[in-house]
Amino acid sequence: MATPTCNALPKVRFERGFLADRARLVRDVVIPYQWEALNDRVPGAERSGTVHNFQVAAGEKAGEFYGLWFQDSDLAKWIEAACYRLATHPDAKLEADLDGIIATIAKAQQPDGYLDTYVQLTAPDQRWTNLFEWHELYIAGHFIEAGVAHFEATGKRTLLEVVCKLADMICRVFGLGEGQINGYPGHQEVELALIKLARVTGELRYVQQAAYFINQRGAEPNYYEAEAKRLGRAKLPVYFYLHRWTYLQAGKGVREEADPIGHSVRAMYQLCAMADLARETGDASLRAACETVWRNLCDYHTYVTGAIGSEWNGEQFSLRYDLPNDRAYAESCAGIGLVFFARRMLDLELRGEFADAMERTLLNNVLAGMALDGKTFFYVNPLEVRPAEAKRRFDQHYVKTSRVPWFGCACCPPNIARTLASLAYYTHSVQADGVALHLYTDCTVEADVAGAKLKLAVATDYPWDGRVKVTVDPAVAAKFTLRLRLPGWCTSPTVKVNGTSVDLAAAQTGYLPLAREWQAGDVVELDFPMPVQRVRAHPQVVHALGCTALQRGPMVYCLEEADNGAHLGSLRLPRSAQLTAKFEAEQVGGAVVITADGERQEAADSALYSAAEPAVKPARLKAVPYCLWNNRGEGEMRVWIRES
Amino acid sequence: MATPTCNALPKVRFERGFLADRARLVRDVVIPYQWEALNDRVPGAERSGTVHNFQVAAGEKAGEFYGLWFQDSDLAKWIEAACYRLATHPDAKLEADLDGIIATIAKAQQPDGYLDTYVQLTAPDQRWTNLFEWHELYIAGHFIEAGVAHFEATGKRTLLEVVCKLADMICRVFGLGEGQINGYPGHQEVELALIKLARVTGELRYVQQAAYFINQRGAEPNYYEAEAKRLGRAKLPVYFYLHRWTYLQAGKGVREEADPIGHSVRAMYQLCAMADLARETGDASLRAACETVWRNLCDYHTYVTGAIGSEWNGEQFSLRYDLPNDRAYAESCAGIGLVFFARRMLDLELRGEFADAMERTLLNNVLAGMALDGKTFFYVNPLEVRPAEAKRRFDQHYVKTSRVPWFGCACCPPNIARTLASLAYYTHSVQADGVALHLYTDCTVEADVAGAKLKLAVATDYPWDGRVKVTVDPAVAAKFTLRLRLPGWCTSPTVKVNGTSVDLAAAQTGYLPLAREWQAGDVVELDFPMPVQRVRAHPQVVHALGCTALQRGPMVYCLEEADNGAHLGSLRLPRSAQLTAKFEAEQVGGAVVITADGERQEAADSALYSAAEPAVKPARLKAVPYCLWNNRGEGEMRVWIRES
Repeated sequence: MATPTCNALPKVRFERGFLADRARLVRDVVIPYQWEALNDRVPGAERSGTVHNFQVAAGEKAGEFYGLWFQDSDLAKWIEAACYRLATHPDAKLEADLDGIIATIAKAQQPDGYLDTYVQLTAPDQRWTNLFEWHELYIAGHFIEAGVAHFEATGKRTLLEVVCKLADMICRVFGLGEGQINGYPGHQEVELALIKLARVTGELRYVQQAAYFINQRGAEPNYYEAEAKRLGRAKLPVYFYLHRWTYLQAGKGVREEADPIGHSVRAMYQLCAMADLARETGDASLRAACETVWRNLCDYHTYVTGAIGSEWNGEQFSLRYDLPNDRAYAESCAGIGLVFFARRMLDLELRGEFADAMERTLLNNVLAGMALDGKTFFYVNPLEVRPAEAKRRFDQHYVKTSRVPWFGCACCPPNIARTLASLAYYTHSVQADGVALHLYTDCTVEADVAGAKLKLAVATDYPWDGRVKVTVDPAVAAKFTLRLRLPGWCTSPTVKVNGTSVDLAAAQTGYLPLAREWQAGDVVELDFPMPVQRVRAHPQVVHALGCTALQRGPMVYCLEEADNGAHLGSLRLPRSAQLTAKFEAEQVGGAVVITADGERQEAADSALYSAAEPAVKPARLKAVPYCLWNNRGEGEMRVWIRES
Repeated sequence: MATPTCNALPKVRFERGFLADRARLVRDVVIPYQWEALNDRVPGAERSGTVHNFQVAAGEKAGEFYGLWFQDSDLAKWIEAACYRLATHPDAKLEADLDGIIATIAKAQQPDGYLDTYVQLTAPDQRWTNLFEWHELYIAGHFIEAGVAHFEATGKRTLLEVVCKLADMICRVFGLGEGQINGYPGHQEVELALIKLARVTGELRYVQQAAYFINQRGAEPNYYEAEAKRLGRAKLPVYFYLHRWTYLQAGKGVREEADPIGHSVRAMYQLCAMADLARETGDASLRAACETVWRNLCDYHTYVTGAIGSEWNGEQFSLRYDLPNDRAYAESCAGIGLVFFARRMLDLELRGEFADAMERTLLNNVLAGMALDGKTFFYVNPLEVRPAEAKRRFDQHYVKTSRVPWFGCACCPPNIARTLASLAYYTHSVQADGVALHLYTDCTVEADVAGAKLKLAVATDYPWDGRVKVTVDPAVAAKFTLRLRLPGWCTSPTVKVNGTSVDLAAAQTGYLPLAREWQAGDVVELDFPMPVQRVRAHPQVVHALGCTALQRGPMVYCLEEADNGAHLGSLRLPRSAQLTAKFEAEQVGGAVVITADGERQEAADSALYSAAEPAVKPARLKAVPYCLWNNRGEGEMRVWIRES
């Protein structure tokens, strides 16, 4: 290995405010809690077995493999999250825990670099034989991301060396050369990880390996078809229902699908790698493919909460406009994948719609995945829940009516942890000629911009208040461009520099460029007024017909039974109703809530069908941010409110 | 066997009109067609194997059992249908076919009376060992019904003797006595059949055996629990999901469940037997249980089309008010079961609501199960279909977007056939002091009423026209009561006898009693005005919120893509819109269609979400009777129309 370059993690401090609270929760509660969960020490939670599996594989204890074939990845994601925490908040105990588990992982790794406790402990002679189902390459990808994060956070090479050895093995084993396996991952992830590894190590061949995986995917003759035949698997699992290899995006080449298809997390991780590769290699066809899928993802396949993947079976994308609310799958990990993809699209082009989508999904769908106490999680994030029905109907059996401490398939909790532990990646981009702010939240950003040390102090109560004060503090006066995102949801933004209004006509694709010589103490004041907005869906979204969603700033709201009583479907919001927004410190952890004079439809009698319309009575409606739902016990929830 | 009494089948001739057309279709097309299907001679249809299985069991040919474990019952239901046809329309070829297959069945029957080709050919040493899954008693029940029908239609005892031998064996094997199996059927049916057999043979012990099965059902300790343990079946199939023995109505005693629960066909057949037993034995607790479940069935569990059983998994009833339209299971057989149950409730008490429900389900849900050409069938009858979605989403995989020629599990087609071949059972009841008319349709009824031969000539274009002329024609002037159903859907009925208006205040529980000495040629004129009615659901039916269904007379309507274009959800019917009804001879086989000036919501642009409401454009809406949908190719369909 060449001497790796430690690309410092972005330096952002989150001290107060909505996202800072979540970041702190992840640091102080979630990461320690998940370490306990991975060690099977959380009473009442489903067993993880993850650390156990590595200890067994390392020869540190006797035992058998426990859990699903991709269990290893939970540990990798947790390590990544823990490293981000360590980068900003040194902690000897955590560092020692990491050193300990990394030593175990290194011991578990086989001499040739192979690392997958499921295969090692259950089918050691069947490495790489079942790419379409097993997750060897997916797990490798997560360990590579962890190894990079560990190196960048601590400067230590212990895990980085493990994952370089693993990556080198992958480069030897997979390809179109003599004696190589010309397959590719059943679950994409290693592709984006190899690019990260290349950026740290300077090893271009890791990019080339990622490019191989992406370019080979779906090539004819289909690798999986041959593999399934070899394995005697004429009948595929039910999640391949109707779709066969499109479930894992291998029915066609990656440039040939216009819509996001198949398993939604796989689809997003693939798109991340495609966007990264487009950037690394300048491959215009990959970039065009990303743009096409992005367009269709946004125009046809995204819930108003930013969630994606509307079908349970196969955790998949469905048809255009097929976005049922009570049967939404809307996996937390798929939302995280969209955030990753959007962030990478921003690296390709500074376009407000990428940041808008990233913000929508992060603040609504992803945050909903975790309780306010950081100890329980949603895997599935429907937009409408009627608990009795969700518990009773098999076609909603995957909908949990309350967050749970852990899952047998626990991909989501550590994925949420690593995402919220690395918010610093999402606030801004450093560019050749300046810096761009994407996500507004109270924080301090430090960066080297155009050769100068720059500090940006962002003071705001966003997302509850649209006023944002950015104090620019370069070490010395410096000429650079500060690019400020003008959120797509805001119809009347204003920007002042040192008290003087700026003409927004200069804004391009959703960002306002402010090019000047910046002095320490320069102040940019942004104001993004946040009236409550009614959002309506395209009329082909049959499950939102006649309804409105409420949004204020970037936050999407919902009705909860705790505030509105049961039978939320019988509530209506008149088109003329005044919507009042007010911050309530005591409400769902402190949030702006929305109230309005609405109405409730009540049956005149017990008849199931009647010529009479239900009677209408006044009812005060109260909506809370969707991401904060289900923090007050089990109850109904509904995002799309009927309008009258 | 004592000398059986041939209770003549009710004598009703259907010559013209809506139901007569269906009855003729069943006689001329469906019954011959299904005989071909049962003999595996319909190209392109799923293989039945049913006749084949009997031929193999009878030693007439070599081969193996084909199909599902309840395949035998398809033949029994077809024989029953064919016998009803033979009773009114003698046909030497059909009679010979029946004699032939009955001879085969008799040969297949084992010396001790046992008859079930699945068990005989696949597990002959495991008779009666798996009552909760196998269908030995269910099949026995259908053969008993067939045997009774064959005897009543032809006077021949060939099949009756087979089924008496089978029934006698069942009486020996099942009970609480020494050496008997104290179990009961996994799928109810034999109970109601045994009562039919008792009525023909005069053998009270068949009633007692039915009573044993009903009373033992769900008794503690639970028979199935012990059976499943004996079979090593700790884990039950997914359709027992959450419910365990309630799936087959054996979680509690039959008098203890207030709501219809579990598999809907099983539930209905059980209720039929309970109502029959209440009548035969005067068991007040059984009658009360029927009344309670009836009430809740109507108030919470019935679709506006009269369909029941809203969940695919286990073909079950769901929670109260849980009536999704696009995921409705609404099995044709379950609707038939409701018709059977309602008819038996009418035997317990002449109450209009029983006839109303019977009519609603028969004319809408059951008739929808068969195409206008009598050759294709629906098993599942949703109230809303979007074909692309139904083909794509696994949670709607059971929804067929067009009727099919046959099913691997083909319970519905022969069940529809035997029901429509026996419409004579549903038109009227003969009572001690008169006759009651339930179903209005053009026909001639002959009956012995209060000792006199009576002919009733019913002339009407019902269900398209509410005017009904009943010419009373007793052989000699006779004093009896003619009870006329006043349909629940009609708000302003009028009745005249020989031109003189009758005061309807005398009507009781939905029937108007006309007691007088009737002379040949007396004429009763009924007028049930049929304005188009808007029907609204109880506001807890979340899937019908904001919508109306259109009904005219007993017919429920739907929008079809063939008339209204795609995206039926985007259509709205203003509350003020005039609804016009008109008979169109060329339309869907000749039917009254409804038109109105409505509107279509169209998106202003391609955005998935927007602050703007969709634009509204005028659109002419056209609705056709639900039972006639899908006779013009595949397309969207929707019963519940959005109101504006």
